[in-house]
Amino acid sequence: MTKKIILLGATGSIGVQTADIIRQHAEQFTLIGFSAGKNMEVTRQLINEFSPEIVCIQNTEDANELNREFPRVSFVSGPQGLIDTATYEADVLVNAVIGSVGLEPTLEAIKLGRTIAIANKETLVTAGHLVMGSAKQYGADILPVDSEHSALFQALNGEKREQASRLILTASGGSFRDLSRQELKNVTVQDALNHPNWSMGSKITIDSATMVNKGLEVIEAHVLFDFDYNNIDVLLHRESIIHSMVEFRDTSVMAQLGTPDMRVPIQYALSYPDRLPRPDASRLNLAEIGKLHFQEMDYNRFHALQLAFDAGRAGGTMTTVLNAANEQAVAMFLNEEINFLQIEELIEREMDRHQVISSPDLETILHLDSETRKSVKNMLK
Amino acid sequence: MTKKIILLGATGSIGVQTADIIRQHAEQFTLIGFSAGKNMEVTRQLINEFSPEIVCIQNTEDANELNREFPRVSFVSGPQGLIDTATYEADVLVNAVIGSVGLEPTLEAIKLGRTIAIANKETLVTAGHLVMGSAKQYGADILPVDSEHSALFQALNGEKREQASRLILTASGGSFRDLSRQELKNVTVQDALNHPNWSMGSKITIDSATMVNKGLEVIEAHVLFDFDYNNIDVLLHRESIIHSMVEFRDTSVMAQLGTPDMRVPIQYALSYPDRLPRPDASRLNLAEIGKLHFQEMDYNRFHALQLAFDAGRAGGTMTTVLNAANEQAVAMFLNEEINFLQIEELIEREMDRHQVISSPDLETILHLDSETRKSVKNMLK
Repeated sequence: MTKKIILLGATGSIGVQTADIIRQHAEQFTLIGFSAGKNMEVTRQLINEFSPEIVCIQNTEDANELNREFPRVSFVSGPQGLIDTATYEADVLVNAVIGSVGLEPTLEAIKLGRTIAIANKETLVTAGHLVMGSAKQYGADILPVDSEHSALFQALNGEKREQASRLILTASGGSFRDLSRQELKNVTVQDALNHPNWSMGSKITIDSATMVNKGLEVIEAHVLFDFDYNNIDVLLHRESIIHSMVEFRDTSVMAQLGTPDMRVPIQYALSYPDRLPRPDASRLNLAEIGKLHFQEMDYNRFHALQLAFDAGRAGGTMTTVLNAANEQAVAMFLNEEINFLQIEELIEREMDRHQVISSPDLETILHLDSETRKSVKNMLK
Repeated sequence: MTKKIILLGATGSIGVQTADIIRQHAEQFTLIGFSAGKNMEVTRQLINEFSPEIVCIQNTEDANELNREFPRVSFVSGPQGLIDTATYEADVLVNAVIGSVGLEPTLEAIKLGRTIAIANKETLVTAGHLVMGSAKQYGADILPVDSEHSALFQALNGEKREQASRLILTASGGSFRDLSRQELKNVTVQDALNHPNWSMGSKITIDSATMVNKGLEVIEAHVLFDFDYNNIDVLLHRESIIHSMVEFRDTSVMAQLGTPDMRVPIQYALSYPDRLPRPDASRLNLAEIGKLHFQEMDYNRFHALQLAFDAGRAGGTMTTVLNAANEQAVAMFLNEEINFLQIEELIEREMDRHQVISSPDLETILHLDSETRKSVKNMLK
């Protein structure tokens, strides 16, 4: 019996790799539906290859055009279309859209008890209490796709949560790990997009350079595994071979290792609790690598990571502010409207002026998200 | 409710550390019985502290003397006494005796369905098929105490055995890892006893220097986890921080890490499936350690490890020959009757002249064990 998969964000970096996994394990997985943005070429290929039952397209005109080409497929569009796709009958929903647009569809799928493979960290960062609360209420499994959280999830596998004492997230340090703060002032968009270990989308590559990505991961880990921020550490590990670790109260540390390849954690989220072969993946060869390096995190150098811990500890709406300010600032940096260090400056300014609302509802989160983006945009004026 | 523990080999290195664990977790564990060799001082301390119900002493005279001092304790002695102690009513039998003397008592305890925490690797190396066969038949759990096998056991926890593809045992390389074979010719007993990472008994420290210890561990891993020898690798890792790893078919590698401290795996075997705090243990600090090194194993340099793989692949009685020849040769080296490299020469000579008997019974194993020791002894003449 195959697992029916719905894939939100099929044409993004994680989406394309998820389609790869489904393609390689056609006996295990069926792509029953997906959502796409504006890349119609990839969308057509996916429809031709996988014959999905439902497809959500960002723009209605594009959806209408595709409907004429593929009359057997149900095409939907816009925010409601995304919800219709997310809640379409399936076994696993992969949320791989970028930004907070994935939040509502995910919450709706959770209400149906669906297993959620979550690559969209903003969903957990901004509305973790709603997602995990609903998941508990409706018995939905939330499986991490991010390599770090997949590693933590694997390290906790078969263990008792209350006997784990500390999460240790590893961080490569991103494209600029060897630069001083002074040197960061003049880095270009191109410099920032050149990540040393991972091949990822541009938003996450910038987040990795600012370390906001690691900060969002810390918040995500707090939400997913219910660990206090005092028991979540970040360790600089330039090779990205140990993807993260869990320390237990007997001082044992369990770690998940592998060559940096996002398809491994993606596949694990789809195949869990089983592991399937990854025939074309490169196996880890530690003798060839020779050395693994570890270094304490410098929170002055990586100030944005400190901001994320601060936002997480403040809780409530503060993580939404962090995330929305960052998304807007990164867009502006990619547009060459601001320089690299301004990303964290803009985040910090938004956080400073925000009054935390605890346990916000979805409406409050979405409103604040949009207000924060506007505010960041206006800061330039 | 406390777990009742029987400890065979209480005055040895593992035994003393096991007593430590029981002492630190008096609410969880009770030392209900133990066996001791000739160290009457430690034996008296243990009896005073733990008030065991049964104690086995190697010599009958010593047992009789203690019986007068401690009239409430049942004293037994000799091989039958060891069996009586091993089979005494309890929850967990810790087999921490040195050499093949632990074999029969362990098999008898298995027949009673007891959980066996096994630190005596000779039991698995010489009679693995009997131990694991009986354990399966009588529903007894066999829990490894060795740090490497405990790491493998922990890495396999919550996973499906058939989805694991490879065991990777780490090896520090022992006291002589940086010496060439030429330089090994003149090393002394004192040099060999100086292990860089672990504080252990003298027999196992010599085995660690010859790499016979790692070879026995490879055979033990084969027996415990039922992996083909082609799927068991040994990786040189001088820091002994990663205690071993399991590779799965999705290329994920799960590893157990920690500071080198035998009390962690000992405690895990006693507390399994739970983990208890280790309040006085030092927590792993990878940032402080800075680097972990890995290197391919050189089977020419570490010839004894190759011999162990050969013995394992030959199977049947060959592993008994390897083990018995090694025990006798190490005793002779510690006695300064032979030099360091002669240990592996004597093992190889015994293996060369042996005709393998497959699936040997206990009698055959014990007879061959004793014959091999004699033969090694006589080689000097």
